[in-house]
Amino acid sequence: MRIIETIDEVRQALSTSKGTIGVVPTMGYLHPGHVSLIERARQACDCVVVTIFVNPLQFGPNEDYDRYPRDLKRDAQLAEQAGADFLFTPSVEEMYPRPNQVGLTVRGLSDKLCGASRPGHFDGVATVVTKLFHIIQPSHAYFGQKDAQQLAIIQCMVEDLNLPISIVPCPTLREADGLAMSSRNVYLSEEERKQAPILYQSLLDVTKALDQGAFSHASEVVNSIHEMFKQAPLGDIDYVEAFTYPDLQPIENLSDQPIIIALAVRFGKTRLIDNVIWSRKEESPCFEQ
Amino acid sequence: MRIIETIDEVRQALSTSKGTIGVVPTMGYLHPGHVSLIERARQACDCVVVTIFVNPLQFGPNEDYDRYPRDLKRDAQLAEQAGADFLFTPSVEEMYPRPNQVGLTVRGLSDKLCGASRPGHFDGVATVVTKLFHIIQPSHAYFGQKDAQQLAIIQCMVEDLNLPISIVPCPTLREADGLAMSSRNVYLSEEERKQAPILYQSLLDVTKALDQGAFSHASEVVNSIHEMFKQAPLGDIDYVEAFTYPDLQPIENLSDQPIIIALAVRFGKTRLIDNVIWSRKEESPCFEQ
Repeated sequence: MRIIETIDEVRQALSTSKGTIGVVPTMGYLHPGHVSLIERARQACDCVVVTIFVNPLQFGPNEDYDRYPRDLKRDAQLAEQAGADFLFTPSVEEMYPRPNQVGLTVRGLSDKLCGASRPGHFDGVATVVTKLFHIIQPSHAYFGQKDAQQLAIIQCMVEDLNLPISIVPCPTLREADGLAMSSRNVYLSEEERKQAPILYQSLLDVTKALDQGAFSHASEVVNSIHEMFKQAPLGDIDYVEAFTYPDLQPIENLSDQPIIIALAVRFGKTRLIDNVIWSRKEESPCFEQ
Repeated sequence: MRIIETIDEVRQALSTSKGTIGVVPTMGYLHPGHVSLIERARQACDCVVVTIFVNPLQFGPNEDYDRYPRDLKRDAQLAEQAGADFLFTPSVEEMYPRPNQVGLTVRGLSDKLCGASRPGHFDGVATVVTKLFHIIQPSHAYFGQKDAQQLAIIQCMVEDLNLPISIVPCPTLREADGLAMSSRNVYLSEEERKQAPILYQSLLDVTKALDQGAFSHASEVVNSIHEMFKQAPLGDIDYVEAFTYPDLQPIENLSDQPIIIALAVRFGKTRLIDNVIWSRKEESPCFEQ
């Protein structure tokens, strides 16, 4: 695996590449969730590029850009073991030599869920992902279902802007106790870590209840999760929402349409997210296994 | 030359193309200015694609979208004669099957000149040009210098978003009396047409005076043009401005830096634009011949 830091060099390296190119865009501090994306790209593509870039454009002024965890040496080992051909790790100066005057703006899909408390976040995500797509020119790009809103927005962006790229959604990987893998999990104190599995546990409980027909309205699902969080006093709920999926429209009366149940919870300064996609149909391809 | 109306079909047609692809994005109703762009692409590229799309996203609610002139049959003849291999003429439904949720936003460069009186115009231009770039995947794209602000914004967009495309600026073509060629010239009444050459004449006069060192401040240039328009009572000035070029920053004391002198003038409902780029240095590559 070759580590490349400049745009010119990665373009040069890929210019002789034949066949499909799979890209796995990440912010680094790789965990098994990222590894599973890289392995999936390796199985499907002739050339696999992992990118590591902690994108300042998608962090708000009071967010964790400066303290976001970084460990390039370990990341390089993990990416290589998972089968990456290239690791692209540009600096902020390489990606933004001057303040961007032209960027992407996301309407509609970005004003809810994580977008509501992180204004401009998804504009920053869409802009950097587009830049990376233009630099790498992949045929396939791999994104985790854990960031479901990001995935929906990127899929929408690819359609709206006619990007010649297939977006491949990949299932969320979890710790043994169900906590979704995230680079931010390292921030958690011991006590917070003990309570954090409540995110997924509450989602599992409501999907079980949904399967049994216990709820007919989305608000009951949301209220039920709020109720469960009384068991996790360190968790401060940012949002719990149920929307149609993948178009993220409000829904109240539950029908056969797939829904996403998503939540964001702060443990101290650490903000964790999780979601499940649920559909009444038994063999929905959307249902997360 | 093959005429293609769908995105899938043009992608399919270009997928077997080898070498360079030059694109000439237009809104149709081609004139010799467009023809010169196509000929330039023909000289430089292995494959030449002309696009014709009157983009609703870049027209304001009271602008001339509905009455914008269209003549596909004549356009096809002109494009073919000029050497185009493909003419891509998508419908609005093909380009925007639903309202775009993700689009481009232009900051800084777009709030002056034509952007000041056409809010959202350059966001619409940047969005449709990006879509066309993603569909055609050209190596080169040809734009006229007449739309100098559009050209500056597209060059900025290519840099900010790392689009793998060379933008080729091409000189403005003019009628015998100096009027810049434009599809909108057909709107002019006989009397308006007689007065319209004042746009270029006033620009020529001030550049001559600049060459002779007659002005030391940008405001003198602007005032001088306003004065000349007293000879053209049908012309209603939208703006006359002098900015640094290509970064379009305000300037007052004239120096060795190239400047753009640009103006927009309404004759009845018809809005005409023109510009020259002037530099004190004798052999400036920016100076329009």
